[in-house]
Amino acid sequence: MTSKLTLPQLNALDAAAFVQVLGAIFEHSPWVAERVLIQRPFDSTPALHSAMVAAIEAEGSEAQLTLIRAHPELAGKAAVRGELTEESTREQSGAGLDRCTPLEFAELQRLNTRYNEKFGFPFIVAVRGHTRHSIIALMAQRLENSAQAEQGECLQQIYKIGQFRLGDLLAET
Amino acid sequence: MTSKLTLPQLNALDAAAFVQVLGAIFEHSPWVAERVLIQRPFDSTPALHSAMVAAIEAEGSEAQLTLIRAHPELAGKAAVRGELTEESTREQSGAGLDRCTPLEFAELQRLNTRYNEKFGFPFIVAVRGHTRHSIIALMAQRLENSAQAEQGECLQQIYKIGQFRLGDLLAET
Repeated sequence: MTSKLTLPQLNALDAAAFVQVLGAIFEHSPWVAERVLIQRPFDSTPALHSAMVAAIEAEGSEAQLTLIRAHPELAGKAAVRGELTEESTREQSGAGLDRCTPLEFAELQRLNTRYNEKFGFPFIVAVRGHTRHSIIALMAQRLENSAQAEQGECLQQIYKIGQFRLGDLLAET
Repeated sequence: MTSKLTLPQLNALDAAAFVQVLGAIFEHSPWVAERVLIQRPFDSTPALHSAMVAAIEAEGSEAQLTLIRAHPELAGKAAVRGELTEESTREQSGAGLDRCTPLEFAELQRLNTRYNEKFGFPFIVAVRGHTRHSIIALMAQRLENSAQAEQGECLQQIYKIGQFRLGDLLAET
């Protein structure tokens, strides 16, 4: 029988192991886990998540942009089989992204390119709960935003993704 | 008192948690952890490492290239403070990369650019045990290799990095 990692187990890890375990909660950015090391022990998953979000918020705009840019493009991600995690497969399948028509796929590519050209970073959305139609509509809508608003929105989506990933990792307290 | 995660603890994790825990062993490529899920329980860290390496080897050249390209550039990595992990800081400090002179830094940038232009992927080396001098010499030397040889060498270095990261995460068996 398998189960999730418990918070006491996580709290008991040495620094390197703790950072390694939480290294992928925020894409390619284990520094977030390092920033909260000193705040252990955490007594709930939301408390841990809040501490990690606060660590990102405490960083300057440049570090936050680096975090955003560490994410792959949505349609590119779906297209490259090797990059899809079991979780992403489930999420993107849940959002119907694996059943894009060629036209929808082309539309996603076009929107990705326009988005990247306008803002200089990839479009990020926590896809759980979305459909491919709602994602395409959302991208078109968010393309109208200012760069500042979009940088903020991408961070909010990243926090949500981190919340989902922590939920996958840790047993409820 | 803190310690490392034990193999029995790792073996007992459910699929999503197992993949999350091992998600950063190979840069931005949690699919490697997914491929070995079915082979649990593992009875030693080397056995787990071998299984993960075999999963990468079983992939085609394209997926392996994607894995290689998921790595940041060495000097760029050192330069962007927000991307440096505690572990990388220790490693790069161990290799003296935080004490580059402006000339050495410029040389690393120049070599990175030439390397990327020639091969189409970033230079990868497991820096533990290296000095900045040996890294610069190694880059210049590896620039002479064929693309095929360098793709193989980058994979070998990635396997070594994965071995170090597993060692940080897991208690010895």
